[in-house]
Amino acid sequence: MGFKINHIAVVVADVQQALGFWRDALGLPLQRVEHNAREQVDIAFLPVGNEGEIELIAPTAPESGVAKYLAKTGGGLHHLCLEVEDIALALSDLAAKGVELITPEPRLREDGILYAFIHPRATGGVLLELYQLPHAAKSELA
Amino acid sequence: MGFKINHIAVVVADVQQALGFWRDALGLPLQRVEHNAREQVDIAFLPVGNEGEIELIAPTAPESGVAKYLAKTGGGLHHLCLEVEDIALALSDLAAKGVELITPEPRLREDGILYAFIHPRATGGVLLELYQLPHAAKSELA
Repeated sequence: MGFKINHIAVVVADVQQALGFWRDALGLPLQRVEHNAREQVDIAFLPVGNEGEIELIAPTAPESGVAKYLAKTGGGLHHLCLEVEDIALALSDLAAKGVELITPEPRLREDGILYAFIHPRATGGVLLELYQLPHAAKSELA
Repeated sequence: MGFKINHIAVVVADVQQALGFWRDALGLPLQRVEHNAREQVDIAFLPVGNEGEIELIAPTAPESGVAKYLAKTGGGLHHLCLEVEDIALALSDLAAKGVELITPEPRLREDGILYAFIHPRATGGVLLELYQLPHAAKSELA
């Protein structure tokens, strides 16, 4: 089918505090922590098994979207990201079926990943991100 | 490390309506829909790639815990479930580290899965379930 779980994003108040649970108590490996200046967040990446990872996302500025989400909800599960093989095809297909898209056209990140978001109103309440990875290392999924 | 994503649970108002997005529009395969009489929910299971699945959970009685969650939140991402190799060891280790557990002892389901829940207060806001599968088909993870 070509789908794969890429990540589950969790909004937290503080990455180091959250790592006290996810890395130190639970025992997931920490791959890296990076600062995303554009989104004004710190992100910790914790791979799980052979597929997918947990991303712990903490705001670093009070005006950021993530800071507002944290203030409103207290944090927790934020979005789910699935990899697809052809994101442009997936988006045009979803649009043709009347699905509400936040980003009708895929956007390109610096690392080469194409991404888009589907509105929670269309999914039953889930903010759903789609990824198309830059290299076609999809043969494992066949 | 022995961890694996088992499922991401999404609370929805109606399973068939939600399948209109997840199966019909997005294109995930539907494995089955089952009624869980004890929890008073319908659950649709949609495998994603080689690991993990999305579970769409809808209340079938207004008094159920899921019905109350739906009424309060409108639905959406509900919990994350990770497989571990030895759930008793994981729980005793977490308890020793002061992690707040909802179910300090693993519980046994009819299908042989041992499960437990970790409190969102301990995880940064995520209701986290742990599974230990009945058969030690873990060699793929080594």
